[in-house]
Amino acid sequence: MSKLDKATSGFYLHKITIIGVGLIGGSFALALKRAGVVATVSGWDANPENLSLANQLQIVDQHSASLADAVHGAELVMLAVPVGAMEAAAREVLPLMDRGAILTDSGSVKQCVLEAIEPLAASQGIRYVAGHPISGTERSGAGAAFAELYQGKRCILTPSAATDPDALATVQRAWQCAGSDVVLMDVQKHDRILAAISHLPHMIAYSLVNSVSSYDRYEENILDYSAGGFRDFTRIASSDPVMWRDIALTNQQSLIEMIDQFEGFLRELKNDIQQGDGKRLYEFFLRSKVTRDALIQPKVR
Amino acid sequence: MSKLDKATSGFYLHKITIIGVGLIGGSFALALKRAGVVATVSGWDANPENLSLANQLQIVDQHSASLADAVHGAELVMLAVPVGAMEAAAREVLPLMDRGAILTDSGSVKQCVLEAIEPLAASQGIRYVAGHPISGTERSGAGAAFAELYQGKRCILTPSAATDPDALATVQRAWQCAGSDVVLMDVQKHDRILAAISHLPHMIAYSLVNSVSSYDRYEENILDYSAGGFRDFTRIASSDPVMWRDIALTNQQSLIEMIDQFEGFLRELKNDIQQGDGKRLYEFFLRSKVTRDALIQPKVR
Repeated sequence: MSKLDKATSGFYLHKITIIGVGLIGGSFALALKRAGVVATVSGWDANPENLSLANQLQIVDQHSASLADAVHGAELVMLAVPVGAMEAAAREVLPLMDRGAILTDSGSVKQCVLEAIEPLAASQGIRYVAGHPISGTERSGAGAAFAELYQGKRCILTPSAATDPDALATVQRAWQCAGSDVVLMDVQKHDRILAAISHLPHMIAYSLVNSVSSYDRYEENILDYSAGGFRDFTRIASSDPVMWRDIALTNQQSLIEMIDQFEGFLRELKNDIQQGDGKRLYEFFLRSKVTRDALIQPKVR
Repeated sequence: MSKLDKATSGFYLHKITIIGVGLIGGSFALALKRAGVVATVSGWDANPENLSLANQLQIVDQHSASLADAVHGAELVMLAVPVGAMEAAAREVLPLMDRGAILTDSGSVKQCVLEAIEPLAASQGIRYVAGHPISGTERSGAGAAFAELYQGKRCILTPSAATDPDALATVQRAWQCAGSDVVLMDVQKHDRILAAISHLPHMIAYSLVNSVSSYDRYEENILDYSAGGFRDFTRIASSDPVMWRDIALTNQQSLIEMIDQFEGFLRELKNDIQQGDGKRLYEFFLRSKVTRDALIQPKVR
């Protein structure tokens, strides 16, 4: 029995609601529909055009006249909005949900979201599970969604002592049906690891593009000389500015810690360049190459 | 008449020699052979295994018993060795070349190479042209070479006042036959632009990988959580450490200048994160996104 068969067997949701039908929420809906584990997907979006695109693309099955309409009767509601909009979205959605239903989210930073939503949900008799799929592209909106986004990717859930075990199991199954490898993790550990492997690289990519494009010694645009390396390297600098503003604001402490650590390494490297220390430079580059090469070795799953 | 037809028409080299038959030198040979503008390619490599691989892969046509044998009778000799090995390679090769033949190179840093080789070549009656194809991958060695590497990519030549115009025209034609758009540029400008668009990103990628892989708060390897974004972003950190040591050592001044500039932008960003200044963060990310998005617009050629 395949992993997916095992996940989908006996698992069925009559209605789920996606709040924020973009890349993340839309792909979650498409993946669950492809797995055949959901009867109806409804959706809501702050941007009416994006919502009608989601309808048009059949990401969402049901036309909803209001948020209440979209949420009514859903066993699972997924908040897939920027981290900074999570609490407000939860405040709107929670009173409209059926008692005992499950609320989950896909926010890239978890401690602030968990702390904000968990007490609100509990007070409304809603079971909340905090989650974060480790995948995405630099694109956004319903048009960017696709059913395979989560295939073979990790999804981290960060339950607290108060998390309902059945609700956790349901959210875990849903992500498995979407193709994810689900990992449970302490919320602070999540935020630190993500600061390192995702938030820091984005801060660096944004800074690099701004730094190089501000180089004004020559009249022409020096970026015209950039080759594939630069374009690949800076792909993530095309990511949604609102999403990343919210991440930077809400994972402040872990992110500052990682930027400090990175600055230390860059300073060490700069010092070796200034000293003309070929031996240390070689070792620095080799250590990095060995680590990076190991990353792309195919893993046995 | 296509650009390539125009470049190849009436252009023919009886013998070229590639010193260092790796990704760059090997791909140059393959591209010229595919264009049908060279009769015989000979080669030499500090690594005998790489040379026999180049023979096996038919990058090099002729088995050469010695460097003298490889170079003898060539109209064009291409030095495609790491920047730090350029001067020594030139010292070995120049006395073996036919008087009036052309020496060129592919070094990623040009001022140091030009200053070292130009007087040596002149004293031997050899015409030297400094060049640098703006393309590459993180792979290296003869096995990584392919004929399409230079297709549609820029190649910068940095002639000096002393450069022979006919030799310059020949090298320019050869790169055009390899598929490149050739640009002529002042040598210092080349080194500054490359520091910005290529050398700085490599220093950042190497530093990022070392920084994240040194994160030791948790026992497990946090890189196991990295997704496609991190892998793409750090691809260039898999580049050859010897090549990059040499670049860092020889383009020291421009590179330090660019690292300083980048550090300033990262510091600005860190400060905005610390201040929790959402407006400035949004503007910083948006500016970067707009610049990066413009980079990938297809250009009319």
